[in-house]
Amino acid sequence: MKKIEGRITAPQGFVASGVKAGIKKSGKEDVALIVSQVPAASAAVFTQNRMAAAPVLISRENAAKGKLRAVVVNSGCANACTGEQGLIDARLMLTAAAGLLGIAEEEVLVSSTGVIGVTLPMDKVLSGIEAAAAGLSVEGHEQALLGIMTTDTFPKVSAYELTLGGAVVKIAGIAKGAGMIHPNMATMLSYITTDAAVTAPVLQQALHAAVNKSFNMITVDGDTSTNDTLAVLANGLAGNPLIDSSSHPDYPAFCEALTTVLIELAKLVVRDGEGATKFLEITVTGAHSQADAKLAAMSVAKSPLVKTAFFGEDPNWGRILSAVGYSGAQVDPAKTTLRIGGIPVVSAGLGLRPDLEALRKAMSAKDIVVEIELGAGSFTATVWTCDFSYDYVKINAEYHT
Amino acid sequence: MKKIEGRITAPQGFVASGVKAGIKKSGKEDVALIVSQVPAASAAVFTQNRMAAAPVLISRENAAKGKLRAVVVNSGCANACTGEQGLIDARLMLTAAAGLLGIAEEEVLVSSTGVIGVTLPMDKVLSGIEAAAAGLSVEGHEQALLGIMTTDTFPKVSAYELTLGGAVVKIAGIAKGAGMIHPNMATMLSYITTDAAVTAPVLQQALHAAVNKSFNMITVDGDTSTNDTLAVLANGLAGNPLIDSSSHPDYPAFCEALTTVLIELAKLVVRDGEGATKFLEITVTGAHSQADAKLAAMSVAKSPLVKTAFFGEDPNWGRILSAVGYSGAQVDPAKTTLRIGGIPVVSAGLGLRPDLEALRKAMSAKDIVVEIELGAGSFTATVWTCDFSYDYVKINAEYHT
Repeated sequence: MKKIEGRITAPQGFVASGVKAGIKKSGKEDVALIVSQVPAASAAVFTQNRMAAAPVLISRENAAKGKLRAVVVNSGCANACTGEQGLIDARLMLTAAAGLLGIAEEEVLVSSTGVIGVTLPMDKVLSGIEAAAAGLSVEGHEQALLGIMTTDTFPKVSAYELTLGGAVVKIAGIAKGAGMIHPNMATMLSYITTDAAVTAPVLQQALHAAVNKSFNMITVDGDTSTNDTLAVLANGLAGNPLIDSSSHPDYPAFCEALTTVLIELAKLVVRDGEGATKFLEITVTGAHSQADAKLAAMSVAKSPLVKTAFFGEDPNWGRILSAVGYSGAQVDPAKTTLRIGGIPVVSAGLGLRPDLEALRKAMSAKDIVVEIELGAGSFTATVWTCDFSYDYVKINAEYHT
Repeated sequence: MKKIEGRITAPQGFVASGVKAGIKKSGKEDVALIVSQVPAASAAVFTQNRMAAAPVLISRENAAKGKLRAVVVNSGCANACTGEQGLIDARLMLTAAAGLLGIAEEEVLVSSTGVIGVTLPMDKVLSGIEAAAAGLSVEGHEQALLGIMTTDTFPKVSAYELTLGGAVVKIAGIAKGAGMIHPNMATMLSYITTDAAVTAPVLQQALHAAVNKSFNMITVDGDTSTNDTLAVLANGLAGNPLIDSSSHPDYPAFCEALTTVLIELAKLVVRDGEGATKFLEITVTGAHSQADAKLAAMSVAKSPLVKTAFFGEDPNWGRILSAVGYSGAQVDPAKTTLRIGGIPVVSAGLGLRPDLEALRKAMSAKDIVVEIELGAGSFTATVWTCDFSYDYVKINAEYHT
């Protein structure tokens, strides 16, 4: 497996585009298309939020058929909490894209991201889709990436190449952040393309496994979005032997590549978390169960007290243990250990007297690893999050309305 | 029932004191005693955090006997995550207080609050307890209140008087905040005195009911403390007919008074939440169950996106509905309504076009009521929280270590 230049159109047979349709006040790219030039197998996961946005409700139906080959997205307006009109608008986006691309409506996924509770300016959206369809190309990858961004400060892309059954297979993905990030069985918006030959059911299985190790292990603010959508399109042009079951010899390698791309994207989303100044990797070991391991790690990752302490570069480890304690996970206080930036801070549940100079240096790093041993079993989990800064408050106090 | 001047020594037979023992860097009061001059019945609830502090572990045993008549507290150091040494120190505080007061150890409750992971400076603590015991008086209520505070910016006290079976009964309480506030079956630190005659089991029953309507319905930052403790001492000096069962005719009136005091204290804790500029009352109606009602209301109350929006005085209602949507509570999006400060903002799941001027005025108030109808049943819940400001980040980035 080899890292390659990050372009969503890196796999064979994919084209993309992004245009400025005037939906965003900033005037930046706000409509994007990603299209496989040939039919594709697909898999997708969506938000578990019960206020799921109109495009999510519509796309779930199409995604279930496993035949998606095109994605149409707008940013600047989430088309969430928009009732019947929202559903009409989302369907209209589908119909327009399918018509312009000459494909079936069930082959199209529609997504929206941005402000909740506002209906789409459909004239702008539809002319945007028309322009985007006319501008599709292999070179359009950068504009497509810009077209899905909202408060992101940098684009998020990842691509890898691997050999399966003698064929060179490419897999590429893009994602957006940067607030309302606490994915639950899905992410904000992320699209993955691959020219691997893989059936839709196997792709769905691989996607679930990969999402549980990547996007479902990150949090910025604990708020699960109404619009989370993650879709993978696999068009088979690489010509590898079709991966048609999870016992196929190439399945593990394909899963590994997919998981690698998803973890890279998920980490980039955290790195660009609203107001983030630190990237925190929180690893829990010694948990009684897999669920407990994630519960404890997520509890620490979500704690405002922990997040503000890291912003202040304060090794206030009591807040970390307290967050573990109220997580609901089983923990043996007398066997708890904690390391921050590799430096032992707690052993057998007691605060050590760490080298304060070394600890201060570890806390001042941009990337910090926090390791917590629960002493209650043998399960582990790693989650990624960011700190909580003045800028998080500023961005979210001033955003909209 | 009549509101009276807020003094923890208002009920007959209670004395209190607070002294500067030198535990707090600020040099302020940091050791407090509250004592009933006669034996009392008691009830108490404690944190559910599995990293429960040493004084909680020790006090749980004593509290179970229902005979507490004295409370010894230090602030400035939580004696949490302090292992065996912490237990020894907490027991020593008990022994010292019991000896000085001439009562049994099992009649004493011990609490600590402050920084986690540091052991108590026992020389200072013990001389503090000695000075506090020597200074006990009816007038000591203010010093006692100061002695339990940490980042609180104002003392929190509430007292009421009612007539039970012809006797005048008083009930008074104090509490501390202001961060790591998301009580779970208990609160940070709160002590209630009453001269009502009530048995310990009935008092415990009344306390559980009252806590579930008060302290368990508030959140500042979603962090459940390691030290939450709430105790009620009832010494019977009012001479009312003993309330010995929940079917006693005076039980409902006593419960109402206790609940009123606890709700007042809980609201004061929220009002003094770290960095708070707004007091938010979030009421959910139309829930499928009582648990769902609280789940939805707490999800909104905990959402950093909602809290920063209120700080920014931005009526970004999409974030409120999103938090309801991911709470796990059943909700019918098409029947959802939302009012902010009495102004209808969402009806049938759709954003209305509210009077923006009126809405802006409502958002600029210090106290804001948020009403959410889920359209899924008939249960309701109200929780109280505060906004999330720059100062929350400042206080918690700079606190300690």
